[in-house]
Formats: sequence, C-alpha cells, structure tokens
Amino acid sequence: RKKVQIFQYVFLKWGLALLIGLTTGLIGFFNNIAVENISGFKLLLTNKLMLQGSYFKAFLAFAGLNITFAAAAGSLCAFLAPAAAGSGIPEVKAYLNGVDAPSILAPITLFVKIFGSVLGVSAGFVVGKEGPMVHTGACIANLLGQGGSRKWRSALLWRTFFTTAVVAIVLRSFIQYCWNGKCGLFGQGGLIMYDVSKEVSSYGSYDILAVIFLGVIGGVMGSFYNYLVDKVLRTYSVINEKGPSFRVLLVIIISVLTTCCAFGLPWLVSCTPCPTDSANECPTIGEIGHYKSFQCPSGSYNDLASLFLTTSDDAIRNLFSNTIIREFQMSSLFIFFVTIYFLGIVTYGIAVPAGLFIPVILAGSVYGRIVGRVFHSVSVLDTGLFSLLGAASFLGGTMRMTVSLCVILLELTNNLLLLPLVMIVLLISKSVADCFNRGVYDQIVKLKGLPYLEAHAEPYMKHLVAGDAVSGPLVTFSGLEKVETVVHALQSTGHNGFPVIGEPPFSDSPELCGLVLRSHLLVLLKAKYFSKERRLSGRDILKKFSPSDFAKPGTGKGLKLEDISLTEEDMEMWIDLHPITNASPYTVLETMSLAKAMILFRQLGLRHMCVVPKSQGRPPIVGILTRHDFMSEHILGLYPHMKQHK
Amino acid sequence: RKKVQIFQYVFLKWGLALLIGLTTGLIGFFNNIAVENISGFKLLLTNKLMLQGSYFKAFLAFAGLNITFAAAAGSLCAFLAPAAAGSGIPEVKAYLNGVDAPSILAPITLFVKIFGSVLGVSAGFVVGKEGPMVHTGACIANLLGQGGSRKWRSALLWRTFFTTAVVAIVLRSFIQYCWNGKCGLFGQGGLIMYDVSKEVSSYGSYDILAVIFLGVIGGVMGSFYNYLVDKVLRTYSVINEKGPSFRVLLVIIISVLTTCCAFGLPWLVSCTPCPTDSANECPTIGEIGHYKSFQCPSGSYNDLASLFLTTSDDAIRNLFSNTIIREFQMSSLFIFFVTIYFLGIVTYGIAVPAGLFIPVILAGSVYGRIVGRVFHSVSVLDTGLFSLLGAASFLGGTMRMTVSLCVILLELTNNLLLLPLVMIVLLISKSVADCFNRGVYDQIVKLKGLPYLEAHAEPYMKHLVAGDAVSGPLVTFSGLEKVETVVHALQSTGHNGFPVIGEPPFSDSPELCGLVLRSHLLVLLKAKYFSKERRLSGRDILKKFSPSDFAKPGTGKGLKLEDISLTEEDMEMWIDLHPITNASPYTVLETMSLAKAMILFRQLGLRHMCVVPKSQGRPPIVGILTRHDFMSEHILGLYPHMKQHK
Repeated sequence: RKKVQIFQYVFLKWGLALLIGLTTGLIGFFNNIAVENISGFKLLLTNKLMLQGSYFKAFLAFAGLNITFAAAAGSLCAFLAPAAAGSGIPEVKAYLNGVDAPSILAPITLFVKIFGSVLGVSAGFVVGKEGPMVHTGACIANLLGQGGSRKWRSALLWRTFFTTAVVAIVLRSFIQYCWNGKCGLFGQGGLIMYDVSKEVSSYGSYDILAVIFLGVIGGVMGSFYNYLVDKVLRTYSVINEKGPSFRVLLVIIISVLTTCCAFGLPWLVSCTPCPTDSANECPTIGEIGHYKSFQCPSGSYNDLASLFLTTSDDAIRNLFSNTIIREFQMSSLFIFFVTIYFLGIVTYGIAVPAGLFIPVILAGSVYGRIVGRVFHSVSVLDTGLFSLLGAASFLGGTMRMTVSLCVILLELTNNLLLLPLVMIVLLISKSVADCFNRGVYDQIVKLKGLPYLEAHAEPYMKHLVAGDAVSGPLVTFSGLEKVETVVHALQSTGHNGFPVIGEPPFSDSPELCGLVLRSHLLVLLKAKYFSKERRLSGRDILKKFSPSDFAKPGTGKGLKLEDISLTEEDMEMWIDLHPITNASPYTVLETMSLAKAMILFRQLGLRHMCVVPKSQGRPPIVGILTRHDFMSEHILGLYPHMKQHK
Repeated sequence: RKKVQIFQYVFLKWGLALLIGLTTGLIGFFNNIAVENISGFKLLLTNKLMLQGSYFKAFLAFAGLNITFAAAAGSLCAFLAPAAAGSGIPEVKAYLNGVDAPSILAPITLFVKIFGSVLGVSAGFVVGKEGPMVHTGACIANLLGQGGSRKWRSALLWRTFFTTAVVAIVLRSFIQYCWNGKCGLFGQGGLIMYDVSKEVSSYGSYDILAVIFLGVIGGVMGSFYNYLVDKVLRTYSVINEKGPSFRVLLVIIISVLTTCCAFGLPWLVSCTPCPTDSANECPTIGEIGHYKSFQCPSGSYNDLASLFLTTSDDAIRNLFSNTIIREFQMSSLFIFFVTIYFLGIVTYGIAVPAGLFIPVILAGSVYGRIVGRVFHSVSVLDTGLFSLLGAASFLGGTMRMTVSLCVILLELTNNLLLLPLVMIVLLISKSVADCFNRGVYDQIVKLKGLPYLEAHAEPYMKHLVAGDAVSGPLVTFSGLEKVETVVHALQSTGHNGFPVIGEPPFSDSPELCGLVLRSHLLVLLKAKYFSKERRLSGRDILKKFSPSDFAKPGTGKGLKLEDISLTEEDMEMWIDLHPITNASPYTVLETMSLAKAMILFRQLGLRHMCVVPKSQGRPPIVGILTRHDFMSEHILGLYPHMKQHK
C-alpha cells in the first residue's frame, strides 16, 4: 500500500476511537441528566403532595408516573428490540468470546437501550444503568467501527486507553459545566460518587474477624441471589415467549409491586426526630434532600422513606456515608434490605434494560450497615465503611469478577487505603460463592443458550481427539464449481464456511485449497462472474470489487440467497472459487487432542477449524469444527459415556 | 484422579500463591528497611561532619562509603550472577513472552538481585529498586512454583489478584508496626508515597496548553533518553565482555563520578534563607530532613544539596510537594536535571541491579518543576502538580506502557481527580516518542538478542508461507529407534524437539506420531529401558517413572548427555519412543501464511510447531519451526529481497 493510504488508515482508526469515546461520553451524560431530572421531578412532586397532607393524591401521582414510564419502557423493549432487555453485559461478554448474534449490536437495540434504560430507571425499578451503558458503548463502537476487531490485543488495549481518556475528559468538562447549576437537578455528584476518603483506616484483629464474617455471609447471600435470579428467569422466559403484550403486562405488574413497596412500607416505621446539628435542612422541602418528611410531623423524618423515595444513587450515598444520616433504625434497614433483595431478583428478566450493579450494591450496602450495627461494640470501623464492604461482598458473591470490581469500587470511593479490606472481602465472598454456583453473568449466558467457550477444556476432552467431534455431512466445493452445485449447497445447508478442494488437472492430487465463506460466495454469485468453460479466472477478478463489498455490514443485515436471481442458463455455468478462498485456514490433525484443539480455537478466536487426515490416500479434509462442535451438550450427545469423566 | 488428589492439588496451588505473596512481601519490606537504614546512616554521618565544618572529612566518609558499597554490589554481580545486572524487567517480559533462559530466574540470581539492589541503592547510584523487585518476585515465584505456567489465563489473573492482596496486607501490617518507630530510620512513608490528594484540580484552557507542551517536550526527551541508553549499553557491552574485573572497575568509575557530582555540584549554588513559617526544622540536624545546611551559614540551607544528599524517595517527595520546600532556585533545578538525566543514562548497564523507574521519575519531576516555573504566570496549576505531570511525561516517553503507568502513578499519588491530566500527558508523550524509537525495555530486549515475538506479524510475512521459513536439516526419529541413532542425534544437534515418524509395520504408511523432547529422551536414556528386539514396550513403562522425573527443574539445571554413560552393548539396543511422544503437536500446513503461523505460535506460547505437507506421497513432516525461525533476522537472511516489503 502507498504511504498516503497507510496514513489515511491510521488517521481513520484514531479518529474513530475518538468519535466512539466522544459519543459514548455524550450519551452517558445525557442518560444521567435525563434520569436525574425525570426522577427528580417525580420525587419532588410526590414529596410536595405528602407535605401538603394529600397522601392519596401523592400516591396517585407517584404510581401513575411510575407505571406510565414502566409501560413505555416495556413497550419499546417488547415490540421494537427484545435484545435490549436485561443488562447487556452477558451478551457483550459472549460477543467478545466470539459469539456472533447480529441483533445484539443492531442500531434499533442501541436506540431502545438508551431510552428504555432512562425510562426504566425513572420508573423507580430496582435496576441500574451501568450494565446498559456498557452495552450502549459496545453498540456504538460496533456501529461506527463496522464490526471491527474482536480479539483482545495489546494495540487494542492502547486504543481502549485512549477512548477511556476521551470519555473521562468529556464527562469531566460536562460535570464542571453542571456545577454552575445549568443542568436542572443534576450536578451534585462528580466522577467520584461516594467519597469516603476522609475515613480513618486503622483496624485491629476484631475488625478483621468482623470483615471475614461479613464476607462469608455476603458470599452465601450473593450465590443465593444468583440461584433465585436463575429460577425467576426460567419462569419469566415462559411468560415472555407468549408474545410482546404479555411482556408489557409483566413489566406493569412488577412496576405496581415496586410502587406499592416503595410507597407502602415507609408507613410501618416510626418517625425519627431531626438531628439538631445537621448542615442539611430537615425535613427537606423543595429539593431532593436526604431527610424525607413523608407522614411524619414537622421536626422529624421517616428514615425508610428517605431510602425508598429517592434515586438509587442518593440511597447508596446515604448508606455509605457516616455524616449525612448518622443512624438508621434497625427495623428500617431490615425492611429495606429484604425488599430490595427480592425486588432486585424479580425485576431482572422483565422487558426493560436493567443493570444488576445498582440493585446488588444497594442490597449489599444495607446488609453491610446491618452487620456494622451488630459488630458496633467490638469494631472500630464505622458503619459507612461496613456498608461499602457489604456492597463489595455482595458484588463478589454475585458477579465474581474480583479485579474489575476492585477497580470499580476504588473509583467509586477514591480511597486507596481501603484497598486491603476490599480485597479481603472480595476474595472471601467470591471463594464462598464459588462453592455453590457460577457467576450471575455466566448463568445468564448459559440460560440464553449462547455458545460461550470456557477458558479451560473440560477434563473429558482429553480423552477425545479432534476427529471425534466432527459430525454431520461435510459439504465441499471444487476449486472450479458449477453454479448450480454452489446454490444448492447454500440452500440446503446453513453452513457458513465450506472447504475448497483443488482437483486434477489443476493440481497433482486432491488437496485442500482453503475455506470459502458463505457471505463471500453470495457476493460473487450476485456479481455473476461466471464462465461457460471450466477454466481459472485468475485473481484479477477481485479488482472488479471494492474491499467494502466483502466487508461485514455493521447493521447486521447482509446479502441473502433470496436477494439473488439466477437464470437457468446461469445455473449451468462455472464459477472459479480460488480468488475468494482463504488459502490459510487453521488446521489440526484428526488425532489432535480435542482439549488442545479447543484451546487453539478459543485463543485465536476462530469460527472454523479444518480437521485434516493423518494418513495418506484419503480425501484431504475430514471435517470442519465450529464453535457449536465444542459445546459440552454436543460432544456429550455424541459420546454419552464420557459423562463419567466430567 | 481421586478426589483427595484434586483437593491436595488445589490446596497446594493456593498455598503456593500465599507463600509467594508472603515471601515477596517480606523481601520487599526487608529491602526497604535495609536501604533506608544504610543510606540514612551514610547521609547522617556526612551531614554531621558538614555541620561541624570538616568538609574534607565529610567528603572522605561519603565517597568511601559510596565506593565500598558500589564495589561490593559490582563484585557480587560480576562474579556471581551477571544475569542480575540491570532492571530485570526486560528479562521478565521476554520470559512471559516464552523466551527460556534458565539463568535469569536461578536462585543465585535471586540472591544477588536482592543484596546487590540494596547495596547499589545505598551506594547513591541513580538507580531504582522497583525493577529489581519485579525480577525478585518473578524469581521467587519460579523457585517455589518449579517453572509453572507461563501463559496468561483468566485463572492466573485471579491467582495474581490473590497474591497481590497478600503482599498488600503483609506490607500494611509491617508499615503499621514501623509507625511506632521500631524500624530505625524507616517509617515516614506508607503505601502512598507522594500524597498529593489535597491539590485542587480545576483547570482552564491555558493549563491544558501548558500540559500539552510539557507532554510533547517530555516525549522528545524520553525518546532521546532511550537513544542514549542504547548507545551507552552498546559501549558498555564491549567493556563488560573483557571480564568480571573490568565490570567492577566500570562500577567503581561510575560510583566516583556520581559521588563527585553529588558532593561537588551543591557548592556552585548560593544559599537560601530558611523559611520562617515552616513546620520542619531548618537546617535539619540529626535526622534525614528536607533542608540540608551543607556549606551554608546557620539560618539558611542549600537547596541543591537537599536534592542530591538525600534518598531518591525523599528527593521525589520534595519535588512533588508544594508544601515542604516551596521554591527551588532555577539554577539548582537546572543543574540537578542535567546531572540526573545523564547520570541515569551512564549508570544503567553497569554490573549492578538497577531499576529505571526512579531515575526517570526523578529527572521527569525536576523537568516538570522547571516547566511549571516557566508557565507560572499563565497557569493556575501548582508546581508540585507540574512535577508529577513531568514525571508522567518522562515515563510515557521512555517506557511507553500507558495503562500500567497510569495505575502506578495513581497508586503513588492517591488522587483520582488528577487522572484525566495524567492520561493526556501519557498519551501525548508516548505518541511523540513513538515517532522516534521504541520503548526502553523493547530496546534492551533486542540488544540482549532475546528472541522476543511481537504481537503483530511483520508485513512481509504475509508474502511467505510456513514452508518457506523451514531451514536446516530435519532430524527425525522412528517410533522404534536404535539407541545409537538417538545419542548421535542428541550429540550432533542442539535441537530441543524431534518429530517421531511411525513406520511400517507399526502403521500402514509413514505417519507423524508426534514430537519428543530432548529432556524426556535424556530421562529415558538414563533409565536404560532398552530392549534387544525391535518391539513396542507399551505405555506401562511410564509407570516406572514418577511425574517429577519429567518435570522441569526449578534451578535451571537439568540432565545433560554427558551425565549418562552408555556401554557399546547399550548402543546396539532399541528404544521405544512412543510412551514419551507428545501425540498432539500443533501443526500447520506448509502453505499456511507465515504471518498466521506466527500469530498461532505466539498466541499459544509454543516452543515447536510442526509443518506438514499439503500434497500426498511425501514424507509426513516438512520441518519444525521454533521461536528463532520467526525472527526477522533469520527470515530476511533467507529472503533478502523481502526487505522491500518491510
């Protein structure tokens, strides 16, 4: 290539990374502003009506808005883009693993994900916007990058770093703009959500014991959370399959349940007198403050309402802090914990973009505060810190991603001195939870039936060879093939790749030329570069195409066989497959251990792997292995007796 | 395997990770204490003598101690373990890439690395102890783990996390112990070396411009640093090859140079009057303080001596801080910058364990302070912060590892709000420096001739196939081979792997059975399991060995051919290679693109790759590719005309 082209390529590549960073930063910012303003409006209205004593009106306003938002989010999701429901992290994880599911990253999914997430969070559901945001970022990158690379390489790490820097700078400048009060109700936060940097961090052996206890119980409850989520998802999938209307109905039912909990339960607790030394107004009037009056007389506040009738971010801030609200009643904490724990479980799986981070952090931080109160007499750590550690234990117990969680918690709290404690808690809760079941994202990937390849081969794979996993009839093409044969093969099979065999007189003996992809065959068929005789056309034929003809479309919709009309005459002609054949397919000998073949397949992010014979005098290819051929269900279906090795 | 064995294995694995973490933590702690106390003693003595006015005595004490320590470190390194010289990070990087060099991780290297590093830093050399510490950790892990796994997998990440947590907790408890003054002069620091968390972090467009300027110049100077290090290393390698005595001599020469600079240059600057409002004693007497009197009259201090005659850690703390010493004289900063920049360059490469981090941070932070002074009138950022950014720009310009550097700087400073600025500086300086040359570690890896495989294939490799890279005579064995043939092959070649061909009557036609390793052959030869007839021995023979017989020894010394004595009679016998043959070697077709073959080789961390023929009726293996066959020097030696594609 010429220097200019190389420069163009590099420039485009970096420009794209910049654009992705900018767009994601903008959308994230829009998302936050929208949520803060919509929920803020709803909560202020409710609060105002409550202060006026119009309890029933307040309930009507609160419930009406909640259900409207919920129905809107549910309809968007159920009718337009079912793939936008849920967190999106399992799908992105599977995509990075190599699973190709075009609708996951389609533009309509992106659209619904953004607006569905804003509406869902505004509707008061116990859902987060972090998971959907990750999915949104992936969609944008896919849309702008047209598929792009999927394998994690060092250059990619560096570009990711660049993109992250752009997002950070964009967000920072917007937040600085908002500090001047130009963005409505948004603007109290910052890049650091829960600043606990003033906490002291000296601790003794009793504290460590308390922390270990917290980690163990957190791990057990985290894995129980996963167990329940799995059960609920299986139940919901039955309902969801009945049609979009049923999905919307389910969303509305959960919305009603959430609304009743949030508005009903605060009536159960007694009022707390306002603190006299607080810098904050109590009870709060006219803004989203920390002390909700609810039904209480003036000079006192309802601590449970202060948790329920606020945004999740503010609730977490209250729980983490040891200065804003010093003490919650134990009964309030307990009611809030049970409600959030189970609402979080029943909410995930409905047709609304729903992150799992916030529900888990919320439940975990209440749990941590409860444990902190229990150990109050023996531990010098304050309850706000216990709350943070409780959130860490729940995150470790459900998500099991210790390193990333550690970084995220560090970013949220901006206190490096807490790192050892957070690490201990994550280690313990993950280890405990691993005894019971798998991480929540792995469970969801499995439940969705996505062919996710694990990093390690299963033990029974060591007793099989690559040839054993080959199944089904093999469809091969000659280097020069009749159009009819190609069309027939494309019609009768769903294969995405076909081996091409070179045959005499074009080679000395039958040999493997390479692999041809369905999408490339379709492009060649559409262009109708056929010839009447059986002869080589040469690579010059490629000059008639531009590289973009063969590129994978970003929208997920490629050429289909039905789009191509071929006459009877066309069908009798010959087509030369050599120019579009990938002449360097990855191959393994049929006697290669299946475990090693799988590692090869996964490490290189392959889609097809050719199995070639070991001995001579046989056809030059034994079969093709794809992702599905490495799935346990498939292999154990072929060799049921291998289960004993499992 | 039985359940008990699996449990044993898991227990051992985690126990080992715990042990590695504990040992590394302990050694790191010992290292710090030793350095702080030895240098502390030296500096206090010098300071005391200077205060008494005995300038010549002070010089003699300072120079004497410096040169003694330097000579000790140099002798240890030159005579006992030459592999312990330098940073160690390039070697560890190459090891993780798959380069096998046993002496790098041998116990003697570990020993010399620890004590050499302590002595080297105490001798006042412009070297860091971070790089050697990384190497030390790798040595310990290798020693305890007996080679262990080398590929980076998710399970490994999780175990690394565990080990890190252990190290963090061990260090923390020790530091807490030291805060009570029980560790001599050590104990002022903590996990966070340079706490700048009180800095404000609002900045405008002028500040950003200043930061961009700083990044660009920092990148240029960083790459110039690399250029000079490369030149100096080439010169030194000529001297070092002359023998250990020459190496020690070189160490002493550099030590004399360093000593003269540190003691001589402070005479050039004028004295600064002590600040009246400082909380610190000025000039400092009797402890390692921030204000060195040097030749100045009482009531004033020498600011250049305060940088030179202190530990590197304290110098960096002074430069980063905006509270300890408010203002340095421009002339002092300039003299210090030039001296440290060039001393850092001439020091790396002598026979002493020498990290590059501290010299680069030191030079960068002075540079940053100078730039801060230049932009003083237009920028609101304070000079301490400029100092940090200067250090970041130098690190980015020399090391080019943006993500890890960002994390390290974050850990050192504990201020997340500075992240966007640090990111910008790193991005700019790395990008600028990349225009000129490669990162310093990559340069050193290349200079040492280690066969490091890059993540990307070179463009010309796309025009070659795997068969093209095969060179040299191929030595193969039959499945049943004469002992004499095997011994002869081991004697006459240096190959580490040999293909095993199955031949009639044991198979229908010649076929590739697999690959046998030199080390395994030696074990089999030593055990003398030969037979008089040419017959298969079966896999039962393996039961006579324990798995540890075939394990790679952690000390780097395996069996050698000379250790095995074979009689004439033995030589005439037959040996069955099937039991020790790896029956699943990774193979590629000879027509596979060389670029793709290289990616496969690197991604899977292979040592041997078998090239098999595409067409039939030929021997079942074309050749073997090893790491060296993928090196540019080798391929371009075979195909000089490919240089045009480079």
